[in-house]
Amino acid sequence: MTPAPGDPAPAPGLIPRDSLLPNLEFPFRDLNSRVTPTECFYVRNHFPTPALTAGGWSLTVGGAVLHPLRLGLEELRSLPSRTVTATMECAGNGRTFLSPRPRGVPWELGAVGTARWTGVPLSAVLERAGLPEVVAAWEVVLEGADRGVMTEPVPSPGEISYARSVPLAKALDDVLLAHEMNGEALTPDHGFPVRAVVPGWYGMASVKWLTAVRVVPGPFLGYFQTVDYAYWEEKDGLPPQLRPIGPLQLKAAIARPAPREVVPCGVTYEVTGAAWSGEADVARVEVSVDGGCTWADAEFLDPPMPHVWRRWRFRWQTPEGPGSRTLLARATDTRGRTQPTCHDPARGSYMITHPLPIEVDVRESSP
Amino acid sequence: MTPAPGDPAPAPGLIPRDSLLPNLEFPFRDLNSRVTPTECFYVRNHFPTPALTAGGWSLTVGGAVLHPLRLGLEELRSLPSRTVTATMECAGNGRTFLSPRPRGVPWELGAVGTARWTGVPLSAVLERAGLPEVVAAWEVVLEGADRGVMTEPVPSPGEISYARSVPLAKALDDVLLAHEMNGEALTPDHGFPVRAVVPGWYGMASVKWLTAVRVVPGPFLGYFQTVDYAYWEEKDGLPPQLRPIGPLQLKAAIARPAPREVVPCGVTYEVTGAAWSGEADVARVEVSVDGGCTWADAEFLDPPMPHVWRRWRFRWQTPEGPGSRTLLARATDTRGRTQPTCHDPARGSYMITHPLPIEVDVRESSP
Repeated sequence: MTPAPGDPAPAPGLIPRDSLLPNLEFPFRDLNSRVTPTECFYVRNHFPTPALTAGGWSLTVGGAVLHPLRLGLEELRSLPSRTVTATMECAGNGRTFLSPRPRGVPWELGAVGTARWTGVPLSAVLERAGLPEVVAAWEVVLEGADRGVMTEPVPSPGEISYARSVPLAKALDDVLLAHEMNGEALTPDHGFPVRAVVPGWYGMASVKWLTAVRVVPGPFLGYFQTVDYAYWEEKDGLPPQLRPIGPLQLKAAIARPAPREVVPCGVTYEVTGAAWSGEADVARVEVSVDGGCTWADAEFLDPPMPHVWRRWRFRWQTPEGPGSRTLLARATDTRGRTQPTCHDPARGSYMITHPLPIEVDVRESSP
Repeated sequence: MTPAPGDPAPAPGLIPRDSLLPNLEFPFRDLNSRVTPTECFYVRNHFPTPALTAGGWSLTVGGAVLHPLRLGLEELRSLPSRTVTATMECAGNGRTFLSPRPRGVPWELGAVGTARWTGVPLSAVLERAGLPEVVAAWEVVLEGADRGVMTEPVPSPGEISYARSVPLAKALDDVLLAHEMNGEALTPDHGFPVRAVVPGWYGMASVKWLTAVRVVPGPFLGYFQTVDYAYWEEKDGLPPQLRPIGPLQLKAAIARPAPREVVPCGVTYEVTGAAWSGEADVARVEVSVDGGCTWADAEFLDPPMPHVWRRWRFRWQTPEGPGSRTLLARATDTRGRTQPTCHDPARGSYMITHPLPIEVDVRESSP
């Protein structure tokens, strides 16, 4: 991609979004590669980063397995590994675009990134532990070493560890016990020494500092998938029910121009961004430069690849005269689905996938 | 029971505990009969009382049944009925004894009562609708006509109806579709024309203004059994999980003296109260008049009866000199279980069953 005229210089590093924890946002205007450099990859912590060591770490595999076991890091690393490229997005990415501003980490656009993850398929470890006949409703609970007390959205029952479950079928399909990110050992903030990677799901499922994996019959109803990281779903004519957030929802995001960027009049500006989805490939991206009145197709810069974003660009002939403009992008997937036009309140401050308005200031170029 | 010397005159009616809704508390010091008069029975509303008519009402029976059906009131009343006496207690009864004072209706002691409920067993209606082979995890969702928006403890997804589920086994065992309370048609605030009565469970399960009954496979995760009326349970070494509140927990409560009552020196004061449990009969009640240092057995006034409280009394020889005293009562059930000594924070502001301290002021009798 050639930088467009109004393109700001890439900002180094990450933007802090929390005064207490390392919750760090990728400056999304710096989207210049399909794989995000590790030092630019967003960080979402719920509790302080635990100080784990390679020698002291072990993984407990238990619950409804035939042979509960414990693996050390060397033993895990000695198992056949896979490398998977996957886009990860925080379920609350884009929260600052909601009005009124909800509680939660105030992400703008950059709580999202793509990395190459190397590790051992969870299926290999579960097969080693031995599964009884698999039942549809069974789940696998992924528990991290990070612990603490939650006060928002509701108080936790004292100190709890971070834990999430995935359906057993998903666990056996493509969940990875990753020990490398972009070809290097995980950094402490990204889950050293081992984290789960759940391709195609929001980031909260990819439990960092993974220390326990347990197979449970029926739904796991832990803090981070009931009172947090959940939404309301209405179905079968029943009153709304709480559902844990799972697969990434279809979304296109604009990297450049950045919100409130100053754009010159009468130039060709290369609008760029990325689009992703958890369940089907992105097939089309459209851009509107007039607040959603008209739309035109963008051009893909990357081929489709499961669970990985596709970057795109759109050549915008900016107006001859000054004024403010609102840019939007929207994606369509291979199943013909597109993004909702408004945020559904039943999603709370999560899964924000309506086209986010990027307002820019078009000005005469200074001489 | 003969009134004890310090016994205050019975207060008429109910104590309002909410400025917006008819949330009314039984003045528990007026406990004078095993069955609570309807006009003294506590009222707990989540939304305004819906204006239902006998002619306009109907009950939908659906979900995973073979023959979904709809019943009018006359049709329901024509089915064989049962009369069941059951104690009902709000899950937040006693909340004002917690410190710091939590959110929620500020109940003192009287969000509890016992009534004779007459109606049609839910099992008869479900059998009429036809059940497939019963699966252990199945539930029955009970939905009321009352609707509204919840803001606390978390916002509801817009307007929702009040709904709760019970396990299918419990539904088939003893849940009643009650159309009479204490021998009269239900009053509007008690669920006219038909409410569920779930014997031995906290009151939130006994859905008022019942208009829909649906059989669902697996757990129903509605608002009033996840973000509200739920607690944290730790088991199998897993992080805490959210569980809907269900059966009444063992509890003894002191009716007289009332909190902060003035009691004369050097008299025999008849301490009275009631004790109840959802799952096993109450076998013993003990009273302490010295803040829990020593305990002595109380005497039962009522024989055991499933799901119904037993009143008890204890003759207290009050001190010769003035001072403040703390009275406590605790129950033991037929399984040998007793009450916890402290409130478990994992229960939030629900299931408050530690012995509640009744502080009284012992004074010289005025001449």
